[in-house]
Amino acid sequence: MGLLSFVVSTPGKIILHGEHSVVFGKTALAASLNLRTCVTLKENGGKEERLTLNFPKVSLEKQYNLTELKNHLHSISIPLLNDMSSTSFSLETPELIDLSSLLELLQTFLKQSSDSKLSTEQENSLLAFFCLFVGMLLSVNIELEPLTIFVDTDLSIGAGVGSSASFSVSLAATFFQYIRTKVASKYEISQNISRKSFKPAKLNVTNLTYFNDKEKDLISRWAFLNEKIMHGNPSGIDNMICTYGSVIEFRKNSGIKKLPGVNLWILLVDTGISRNTASLVERVAEKKRRFSQVIDPVLDALDGVALSASALIGQLASHSGGDELNLQVGKLEELVDMNQALLVCLDISHPSLNRICDLMSQYGLHGKLTGAGGGGFAFSLLPPGYPDDKLNQLLQHLAAEGFKGTQTQLGGAGVSVKQI
Amino acid sequence: MGLLSFVVSTPGKIILHGEHSVVFGKTALAASLNLRTCVTLKENGGKEERLTLNFPKVSLEKQYNLTELKNHLHSISIPLLNDMSSTSFSLETPELIDLSSLLELLQTFLKQSSDSKLSTEQENSLLAFFCLFVGMLLSVNIELEPLTIFVDTDLSIGAGVGSSASFSVSLAATFFQYIRTKVASKYEISQNISRKSFKPAKLNVTNLTYFNDKEKDLISRWAFLNEKIMHGNPSGIDNMICTYGSVIEFRKNSGIKKLPGVNLWILLVDTGISRNTASLVERVAEKKRRFSQVIDPVLDALDGVALSASALIGQLASHSGGDELNLQVGKLEELVDMNQALLVCLDISHPSLNRICDLMSQYGLHGKLTGAGGGGFAFSLLPPGYPDDKLNQLLQHLAAEGFKGTQTQLGGAGVSVKQI
Repeated sequence: MGLLSFVVSTPGKIILHGEHSVVFGKTALAASLNLRTCVTLKENGGKEERLTLNFPKVSLEKQYNLTELKNHLHSISIPLLNDMSSTSFSLETPELIDLSSLLELLQTFLKQSSDSKLSTEQENSLLAFFCLFVGMLLSVNIELEPLTIFVDTDLSIGAGVGSSASFSVSLAATFFQYIRTKVASKYEISQNISRKSFKPAKLNVTNLTYFNDKEKDLISRWAFLNEKIMHGNPSGIDNMICTYGSVIEFRKNSGIKKLPGVNLWILLVDTGISRNTASLVERVAEKKRRFSQVIDPVLDALDGVALSASALIGQLASHSGGDELNLQVGKLEELVDMNQALLVCLDISHPSLNRICDLMSQYGLHGKLTGAGGGGFAFSLLPPGYPDDKLNQLLQHLAAEGFKGTQTQLGGAGVSVKQI
Repeated sequence: MGLLSFVVSTPGKIILHGEHSVVFGKTALAASLNLRTCVTLKENGGKEERLTLNFPKVSLEKQYNLTELKNHLHSISIPLLNDMSSTSFSLETPELIDLSSLLELLQTFLKQSSDSKLSTEQENSLLAFFCLFVGMLLSVNIELEPLTIFVDTDLSIGAGVGSSASFSVSLAATFFQYIRTKVASKYEISQNISRKSFKPAKLNVTNLTYFNDKEKDLISRWAFLNEKIMHGNPSGIDNMICTYGSVIEFRKNSGIKKLPGVNLWILLVDTGISRNTASLVERVAEKKRRFSQVIDPVLDALDGVALSASALIGQLASHSGGDELNLQVGKLEELVDMNQALLVCLDISHPSLNRICDLMSQYGLHGKLTGAGGGGFAFSLLPPGYPDDKLNQLLQHLAAEGFKGTQTQLGGAGVSVKQI
């Protein structure tokens, strides 16, 4: 077997409807975004015992001595919930990890192994990386070879377009691909892949060129562990949408509904303004406490928007085009307008977001913020047949006011892998 | 007794919260507006048998030969509902009039007595005038003397600030004042004031310098007759608020609640854009049919806004000033913002209204449309202590964009009368 070399590619995500109201148990609708995070893994070959990490988006390049790293990390016994012993744990049970204890160990390790002070984004990236590195690789009976891992992404970081979930899913899929390739080359038939002292686990390697639903489930669950590092109390929708792609209807405590594939384009516009998701979520909660007579029905209305849009998108799949399609897209656009007004009512928009929506409206489009609000991104559907020259004029108009617009497709494929 | 001469003054009205949602049975909150309609009635004296009407706001000046007019109008027997005879009718029962039949008669009369084509506003003004003239004056046993009636108003016509209700209440109060003054000069003690062939009615004239609640009730009911001419199916809130003043909480089929007096100033801004109330009402109804999952809770949220504001205004009366007052006004401002967003969600705002609200926001104020939307007026509360120079800057900024702003007081006195 030659040197391993592959790329994992994972979409970003966008919340179409239901940001904020999802916190209060209402329906959200999210779609994968054809702006992707790519992780390239290459075995280095040669004698140099190096692990090289290159994450240019967060200006991070690190080299580790692989032997030292393995020795150190193997000396960390993976902390499990309820003081379970490692014999209960395998690659198949990410949920058993005691994340806060693991984080503490990893933070100590990062401090020891870093020469200079890391930015929050750099630290989070490394914590996410090593969390999966320890959790996924160290329980499996394979030999790590010198590696270079390069991460690049089309996605803005911390802007509500799923950069962290896309990163987490990419990493989980990369490690999973690494493991199953090693396993496939090592064993003729499926047998236990766990190291001794861990719970036995089997891996049926059928096809190294894509991930089936069962494999995606495992990838998504490992990625969710990372989402917890990044977001504290994530909903779980981001890792699911980045793993599976498509459009997903989601409600807290009642799981997800995957909608049929759609072929919709959007214009995604960056305000360039960073925001604090937690404080925006708290702002809504506080408003709800003070004006429950208003905010409670507004949350119901947001639920209605998401459910109505979900039903329309469900019907879209059966329309190949023509007047009927335009009618449905027109209704989706109306829902976008209503949604934006309701988010303004919750006071989580921003003058820049309002301005972008105004400009979109001047060009016959219908915009709303997406994600936490207070900055980040706005989007508009691009109805079929929307003229290119008009779109270019709008993009120029947006650029003239300092807003970067990107055309991209919704609901595309989830995580994928390609040998290189 | 010398020549009669008095002025009746009636406030305009503004809907603070609940426009549109009131159509669907939700709460509305309206306040009187210290922009007023004044009707001056002067007996001419001398021998000339003239009735002169001067309504400069609608460019109308008419002179009638009073003898001919009386003969003609007396020949019209007041049409009553269910073919009741005139012996069932008196000044106290405006509701018995068969309005559509009376309107037909009056339209014929107007055609015969007008040389040139009347504008809709002129025709409506004359219909309103003669409807009350016939209904109120002709059943009462007093002798009409040569008169001049001059109507002027601070209010824009057809812009949602109650110009028609203010006009109707002023006219009804003018005729009522005329009748009771004549009655007071004619009879030593209260006795039947109806002409023979009408139902006997008594009028206790206690004080000619103001209207008590019972008198206001009668004035409001006569004015409501006029509102029906102007608006087809009016809610009845406009004539009530213009008659009684103050702030009124109102719900279809469940009457009104008068709130304690407030001392609030607002900035009222005219878009200068006329709108079609009926088509805006239909737009909301149509949206509700297509997106009931969204619009039904939005209407509930609008109900919540009006109820919350009503509760706050109820508390305002007990605050003389200071931090507590500012806190309450701040909450009212938040409700104004939420209300505007919800009206945008109903798609009944207008770029000019949005622009005015944006400008207000730039100057630290909180604006919403008032009335049907689609044009007309926007308003913002002026919190106590809002700096004059800032207000002047805003007024200049608004004027530079073609919007006329007026400072005025909310919740002032209702209809009043003054001898001159």
